[in-house]
Amino acid sequence: MIRSLCNISGGDYIDNFTFYSPTCFVFGKDTESQCGSLIRRFGGSKVLVHYGGGSVVRSGLLDRVKKSLEEEEIPYFLLGGVKPNPRSGLVYEGISLCRKEGIDFILAVGGGSVIDSSKAIAAGTVYDGDFWDFYSGKRIEKALPVGTILTISAAGSEGSPDSVITLEDGMLKRGASGDAIRPKFSILNPALTQTLPPHQTAAGITDIMAHLYERYLTNTKEVEVTDRLIEALLLTMIHEGPRVIANPDNYEARANIMWAGMMAHNNSCGVGRSQDWNSHNIEHELSALYDCAHGAGLAVTMPAVFSYVMEHDVMRFAQAAVRVWGCQMDFAHPEVTAKAGIEALRNFLISIGMPRNFEELGAREEDIPELVHMLCRSGGRDGSISGFVTLDEKDCEKIYRLMV
Amino acid sequence: MIRSLCNISGGDYIDNFTFYSPTCFVFGKDTESQCGSLIRRFGGSKVLVHYGGGSVVRSGLLDRVKKSLEEEEIPYFLLGGVKPNPRSGLVYEGISLCRKEGIDFILAVGGGSVIDSSKAIAAGTVYDGDFWDFYSGKRIEKALPVGTILTISAAGSEGSPDSVITLEDGMLKRGASGDAIRPKFSILNPALTQTLPPHQTAAGITDIMAHLYERYLTNTKEVEVTDRLIEALLLTMIHEGPRVIANPDNYEARANIMWAGMMAHNNSCGVGRSQDWNSHNIEHELSALYDCAHGAGLAVTMPAVFSYVMEHDVMRFAQAAVRVWGCQMDFAHPEVTAKAGIEALRNFLISIGMPRNFEELGAREEDIPELVHMLCRSGGRDGSISGFVTLDEKDCEKIYRLMV
Repeated sequence: MIRSLCNISGGDYIDNFTFYSPTCFVFGKDTESQCGSLIRRFGGSKVLVHYGGGSVVRSGLLDRVKKSLEEEEIPYFLLGGVKPNPRSGLVYEGISLCRKEGIDFILAVGGGSVIDSSKAIAAGTVYDGDFWDFYSGKRIEKALPVGTILTISAAGSEGSPDSVITLEDGMLKRGASGDAIRPKFSILNPALTQTLPPHQTAAGITDIMAHLYERYLTNTKEVEVTDRLIEALLLTMIHEGPRVIANPDNYEARANIMWAGMMAHNNSCGVGRSQDWNSHNIEHELSALYDCAHGAGLAVTMPAVFSYVMEHDVMRFAQAAVRVWGCQMDFAHPEVTAKAGIEALRNFLISIGMPRNFEELGAREEDIPELVHMLCRSGGRDGSISGFVTLDEKDCEKIYRLMV
Repeated sequence: MIRSLCNISGGDYIDNFTFYSPTCFVFGKDTESQCGSLIRRFGGSKVLVHYGGGSVVRSGLLDRVKKSLEEEEIPYFLLGGVKPNPRSGLVYEGISLCRKEGIDFILAVGGGSVIDSSKAIAAGTVYDGDFWDFYSGKRIEKALPVGTILTISAAGSEGSPDSVITLEDGMLKRGASGDAIRPKFSILNPALTQTLPPHQTAAGITDIMAHLYERYLTNTKEVEVTDRLIEALLLTMIHEGPRVIANPDNYEARANIMWAGMMAHNNSCGVGRSQDWNSHNIEHELSALYDCAHGAGLAVTMPAVFSYVMEHDVMRFAQAAVRVWGCQMDFAHPEVTAKAGIEALRNFLISIGMPRNFEELGAREEDIPELVHMLCRSGGRDGSISGFVTLDEKDCEKIYRLMV
């Protein structure tokens, strides 16, 4: 669904591509105090500060943001209330506010949901039609500038040209894309993520790993450099994930995860190769229907999808098993190694507190027909989804049943 | 000497940093035909086309560039003649030409030398003083926009804020830096590198590996993500290097090396950590004095420097040996493993055709006192160079003698 990244129609060998990631990343302790001057540098003069719930307020982060804006004498309006799996309703509200007040810069203070909602407002404000057009296939060409202050390492939206929004009418979760919504700057302070509950930290880790696997599962041949970069970031997550779960205050582990999360999704390790995104598509129906954390949904989805499609390219899964999970290669039976890698992923995700099946996720077996229908028949799809392999309704049903 | 990358005064643990790499990379076959429209997109209206010797002319590349500019009706001036280890004389000539003709965009067509010369012209044209001020420590804040068409994977200048120039008066080779000289766009067509002689290809591979090692040798603790990214790119070079030496027409191997070369030096894998750059500093005196290929000089320099400083952090060299070179860890004697990794690097570089010592490089033992003096006493240095470890004149002399 992340269309810009999904060059699944590419050739067998490395494709031509353009990589353009002009976001200015300001990384480290106390960097949120620079938001006012960064907004000035990137041309903002009247700002919408967009955020989620109480934690940004309770932690004092919002006050520090206000102080920085006031020091630069930048007028601002506040719009809180973004929920996980951000909704279209608040986007419409934000667009109205921006137009009414002549706002020229959006500052997102939060995680992927807040940033994605901000990007939708940024694109919608300067567009004559309904912003949902962009989430129905139209490419975003123009938007207000967006800056971010990231509070969770997960979605990678701080460095990506993508946004995912849920349409409240029908709970349809869809993505939009365009260089115009890449953040002008992103402030990454790992310390801001130290107060996250363990479940959210773990869901973020899972989301980052999914962004890597979605790129790893490619049909493009001879893409050694991006294979190796993806493996490097997965190895980082495997090393640092358990360390932050054991000790949420570990600044260095938080910092490594935060940089990995950005690199995992600004596409520097996904260029020139076809990508998968079937796990994301299959998961989106779960978080749309049950409002579960996207990462938690991915933890259940990925092992099921990978087991189902493993035969399409056993050696690719064996490579991940050996290089990422440290499995011994079974040269006589590569499929044994391939499977061991998928099991290692599943066990890792369970070990950091992620759900293992529908029940733990809060999903219901009896909804599978509806999930399959929403997945394969809505938003212009004609009965299948495509990526690493093309999956029809029967395939998707079997995959959902593997999760029960 | 690459000052912007050399945060050697950093703390023990991950430092705050800013990462800003706004270059638009246009990668793949025939992409040079887009140079005219890219110059328009990035605001150029009168162009200096800067290049080196005959190969750009003979191959027809210069004609294709002219055609693209003419199709966009962009007037241009040609300035060829850039030599490896680019000289100050041509920079002064370029600055005069740009001022006289009101040129507002520099297009570099070539390798690192051409790009570095273009960056120097770009900064010098809009500066009232002598451009060499920037190569004596002054930071570049303003420059004409630069675009590049890369013809060799090596210097990484296509994605970096750096430039290295040799002052003809005294053959002093020094670097300058600043975001203002980061290219607006870089066209990376791996096919353009297929006609390089094997020695140049190998020297480029060595330069890329040196950019990675200079970042790997850090005193910053707990930098897993950048360690892993550097290792990923080294593994790519080890896999693809011998493949292009054996078959210069291997497009995929060329493509993997080209992307690795950019990623190795745009600092995405060097952020937040102290870096070394002593091997570069020690080599610069060799290529300044003997006009040898920078990469060839590095092939002789790196193993000598690493052997000399290995004891400073045996476990770091052991980590490289195990993770990059596939050595078995000797848990009782880590220094054995550390040394094996350095030997593996040396043997790899020899295997792709690089020189192993002073004699093969064309350097002379009797010049060592002069080399040491130039290295440690010129350009404001007071008798030592610093990086992973601080090296005084005695250390540097011993290191040069290890190369004999």
